[in-house]
Order: sequence, then structure tokens, then C-alpha cells
Amino acid sequence: MLADKPRQDAYQSAILGSRDLFKDKTVLDVGTGTGILSIFCAQAGVKKVYAIEASNLARLAREVVRENGFEQVIEVFECKVEDFQLPSGADKVDIIVSEWMGFFLLHEGMLDSVIYARDKFLKPNGLMFPDTASILVAPCSVPNRFDDFDCLSGVSMKAFGRELRKQKADKPEILNVAAEHLLHEGHIMTWLDLKEVSTEDLNSFDMKEVMVIQNPGKFQGVCIWFDCTFPSVDSSPQNGVVLSTNPKCPATHWKQSVILLPEDACEEVDKLDPIAFSLSLTRNSDNCRRYNLQLTLLDVEKEEHGLPCDCVMTKCILMKAHLQKMEVE
Amino acid sequence: MLADKPRQDAYQSAILGSRDLFKDKTVLDVGTGTGILSIFCAQAGVKKVYAIEASNLARLAREVVRENGFEQVIEVFECKVEDFQLPSGADKVDIIVSEWMGFFLLHEGMLDSVIYARDKFLKPNGLMFPDTASILVAPCSVPNRFDDFDCLSGVSMKAFGRELRKQKADKPEILNVAAEHLLHEGHIMTWLDLKEVSTEDLNSFDMKEVMVIQNPGKFQGVCIWFDCTFPSVDSSPQNGVVLSTNPKCPATHWKQSVILLPEDACEEVDKLDPIAFSLSLTRNSDNCRRYNLQLTLLDVEKEEHGLPCDCVMTKCILMKAHLQKMEVE
Repeated sequence: MLADKPRQDAYQSAILGSRDLFKDKTVLDVGTGTGILSIFCAQAGVKKVYAIEASNLARLAREVVRENGFEQVIEVFECKVEDFQLPSGADKVDIIVSEWMGFFLLHEGMLDSVIYARDKFLKPNGLMFPDTASILVAPCSVPNRFDDFDCLSGVSMKAFGRELRKQKADKPEILNVAAEHLLHEGHIMTWLDLKEVSTEDLNSFDMKEVMVIQNPGKFQGVCIWFDCTFPSVDSSPQNGVVLSTNPKCPATHWKQSVILLPEDACEEVDKLDPIAFSLSLTRNSDNCRRYNLQLTLLDVEKEEHGLPCDCVMTKCILMKAHLQKMEVE
Repeated sequence: MLADKPRQDAYQSAILGSRDLFKDKTVLDVGTGTGILSIFCAQAGVKKVYAIEASNLARLAREVVRENGFEQVIEVFECKVEDFQLPSGADKVDIIVSEWMGFFLLHEGMLDSVIYARDKFLKPNGLMFPDTASILVAPCSVPNRFDDFDCLSGVSMKAFGRELRKQKADKPEILNVAAEHLLHEGHIMTWLDLKEVSTEDLNSFDMKEVMVIQNPGKFQGVCIWFDCTFPSVDSSPQNGVVLSTNPKCPATHWKQSVILLPEDACEEVDKLDPIAFSLSLTRNSDNCRRYNLQLTLLDVEKEEHGLPCDCVMTKCILMKAHLQKMEVE
């Protein structure tokens, strides 16, 4: 995880770039791991960090705190946040920092624990680092699961490609999608205000979309990623740090999650062609930290398009012309 | 494995670059996997390939053979080579091809099976692809296991580095060493003639070396890699294809194997400084496909140096001057 530089850089910039928010404050670090986020907070001038880590990494975090000379500022607790108590007489904290994100934001993440910590330990109007999260979705090409097997060192390996895809058919693949293989810049599936969201809100998400292709290519999969934003000193969102796992941004250890289409559903799409699908993200009933993804391709003829819609279908071209005419008149 | 381009390229060049050696010949492919090496042989004009695969990848290999139109040339057998029989009346084969190499050449490889196949199925004077293999060893720096933790995003993470190294202390690390982190171009630990070597020859290997540092740096580990060579049409070794896992060559899935030194044994070394160690590679008694590596650092004062030795020790400087003087006289 420490090798994920975009992730480290985002937290470091968000925290050290907002020293005024951290100065003399108290912070709770949920799932501190090796302690690095707590140390960023200490470097930013906080009065106190409670760093909670359920695994025995807590002992390592204590050593790291010591070697950085912050043992007066950072106190490491080896426990689950659900078992944690603030020292008696201590006020609630001003800020919660946490790196809780899983694959496609929620899968194997620990947002539930962060929400628990927020509701129990954060002052009213306290800050969350990060404070928003979005899941984004776009159609994409996936040559290294399809076309690359048409000719590998001069050998046709289609059977191997099929086998590889079959083995993964029931779960999304975690891989780096090249920016040029996105067929669309992406639509937001959900946007979470981390100061408000409840664990119940996280049980399921659904989207149904008609998307108009922006870059021609082979529609072979649906690419899912997430962005998180952090508060900034002047509280204007455009100045805040963004940690993005967009294919257009430097690769992180989360990469992207891709649901591959069945081979016979893949198709060449042109700019302005419409595609339609529904996607659901649902908590696994056996393990609430796991999520199931379900993609269904829909018929663009039957689905309702946007108003106006930029796609090449006759009804949309006519409707768009009509709307433009009304606007002119 | 199919993603390992240097590996694919080496076999492809070795086979397709030696069409005259393959034309109308019979080939045994030991452990064909997805069948790609058998297809290279078919492309090179062989009469027949017996492609043996113990796992159920054999079924996939059959599909790959079919999609490349070579079902008349390549016959896939789903069995261990030890259980394989040539079709009744068939001659022994002219050539054995196999990609059998494991980490540091032998660990989790399958050279024993290839030797078995050679002794049972290869004609006298038949060819082996590859036909030689060497294990090479050099001192190296390993910053991403040591120095990188001195300051990671402005945080001292030495305790984490120590923990990481401790977890791996009993086995070599498989990682890509950057060419500039080699402190020496490498000495050969062993060289194997694959037409002659026996399984007993593979039980253990030992080396004891005084090496004279060529590039200054931190001596933090011993890097182990291997090279294989292939026969060429004009049988001059310099024209043959080499598959090298040297840090100076493009990275393969084998990477390099590195034995890390204990932190207190690491030292800054200068050009011409001598270092000394012994290294043994021994078959694991519980699993003959696994190997144990044992590194012992030795005292350069007590070990015998080369004659002449280029190192900075007084006795070597004097000896070298003496030998040069004798040569002049």
C-alpha cells in the first residue's frame, strides 16, 4: 500500500495543504495501518491523534510514530473502532481521517466502520478526510482480455482468451484500463456525502443509463472507478484535493474494476452511437464488506433517452432539432 | 505467462530462426501449457509434435492447435511425461522443446521431467531447446527493501522496512533489480549442458567467491538470475538465441531472486573493494522441485583471492605488481 504514490500524495497534499484546518485539533485515524496518515496529521500541527488499528500492524505503527518523534502527539490503539473508547474526559474529535476505500469504492472497504466512528466520536460540524466519494461508470474496450489473443507472437490464442474470461465471468476484473480505451468520460453512479451517509444507504445502488459514445471502439466491458475529495481551507470544492482512480489519472493499487461483456454481446461502436445498460451494486448477504455487481445490457430502442439526446437514432435527431427550433422561436 | 514477451520472443526466434533444424523433424514438447511452443515448431515446418501437458490445460492446448490449423501436425497428450509412451512403431524424436525454468532456474521448475524425456525419447545427437543453462550471481543494492523506507512521503518508515524484511528473511525475494543496482556484472555459479546433465547433478550446487566490486554502492543483497541458450543452424554459440533474466535485459516473469543481507551486515562498498561469500543451492528433501538457498558472508581477509586479484587489498596490489613485473621480465 505504501507503494501507491498517488494515494499517499493525495492524503499528504490534503492534510499538509490544510494546516490551518489541523492546527491544534484532535484527530481520529480509523484503520491507521502503518500510521502514515497520523504522521501527516502530526506534521500538520494537530494537538492529538487517536490512531486505531485492529490488526497487529498497530505495534508497527507505534514504532513508526516513535521513529518520527511523535509519541507525544499520536496514541495508537490496537482494537476495532467499534470497541474503542475515547480517554475519559476527552472531547469528541475535530477531524476523522481514514483510508477506507475498497475496490470500486466499497468492495472490501471499511466505510461502515468510518461511519460508526463519525456518529460516535466526531463533533458536530467536524471534518471528514475525505468528505465525498463518487462511483463512476463508463463503457470501455478491454483488448488485453479480447483482441490481444487474436494474434499473440503470431499464434491465434482465442481459445485461451475465452478460457481466461470464463474463469472470471462471475466477478469484475481488477485491471488498469488505458485512458484511450474508455468509450465515454463516465457517468456518476452514486455520490456520497461522507458527513451524512448512513450504513443503510450503502446497501444497494442502481443505475440505468443510455450513454452516447464519445470515442469509437469496441464495447467489451463496463469500467467502474471512484473519486474522493477532501475538505480545503477555503472550503471551495474546486480547490480541494481529489484522489481519483479514473483511468486518465496515474494508476493506483485499486486500478479499475471491469465487468466484461459476453463475447457475443461485444460490438463496434461509433461516436454518437447509444448504448444502454443497468448496473446494480449490492451488499453480499454473507459478508457485508463484500459487494456484488450485476450488469444487464438493455435495448437502446426500448429505453428512454435523455432530453435532448445527442445520439444518432432518428427519434433523438428529430427531437433535438425540434427542441432547438423551440428555443430559437 | 503468455504476457512474458521476452520469454515468448526468445523461443519464437530460436525456433523460427532455425527452420532448417526443424524442417520435417519430430519434436517432443514437454509441458506444452497452452501449446504455443508446439505451434512455433509447426510454423517452422516440423513433421510431427508430441505435446505433453499434465494439467487440464491440455484441452485448451488442443483448441489452440485447432484454431491455428495444426491438428494434423500437433498431437496433444494429457499426461505426465513419465507416463507418456510414443505411439507404437514411432521413432524417437529429433528435438525436445520445453519451457521448464523456475525461479533462480531450478526452484519449482521441471528440469527433472525434461531430463527423463531426453533419456527416454530423444535420438542420440538429438537437439534440446534450450540446450544450456547458467545460474549467475552478483552483489547488489536493494533500495526498495532498505533505503526507500528512510523517507517515504516525508515520513521515516524504517520500522516498516525492517518488518517487511523480517517476514521474508527465510526465503529469497522475487523482484526486479534495476541494472544500476548491480555492484558487479555477475559470476557463474553453475553452467549446465542440458544434453548431458543428470538429475543427480541437480541435487546441490555450491560456490565460494571473492568478488571485486565494479560499481560502488550499498551491498545489501545477493542477486541471482539465469540465462539459457538455444541451438542455432550454424551451431556457433554466438549466433544462438539467449533467453536472459539478467537485470540488464528486459524484465521477465521470473524477475530476479535476491537474498537480502541482515541490516547490520550491509555496507557501502567502493569500486575495487573485495567482498566474499559462499552460496549453496540444495534440493528440498520434502519436495524435490523446491530448492533451498543458503548464503554465508565470509571474511575477505581470510579467503583466497584470485591470481591476480584486482581488489584494493595490499596483498593483492603487491601480488599483481609482482606478477606484472615477472611478465615484463
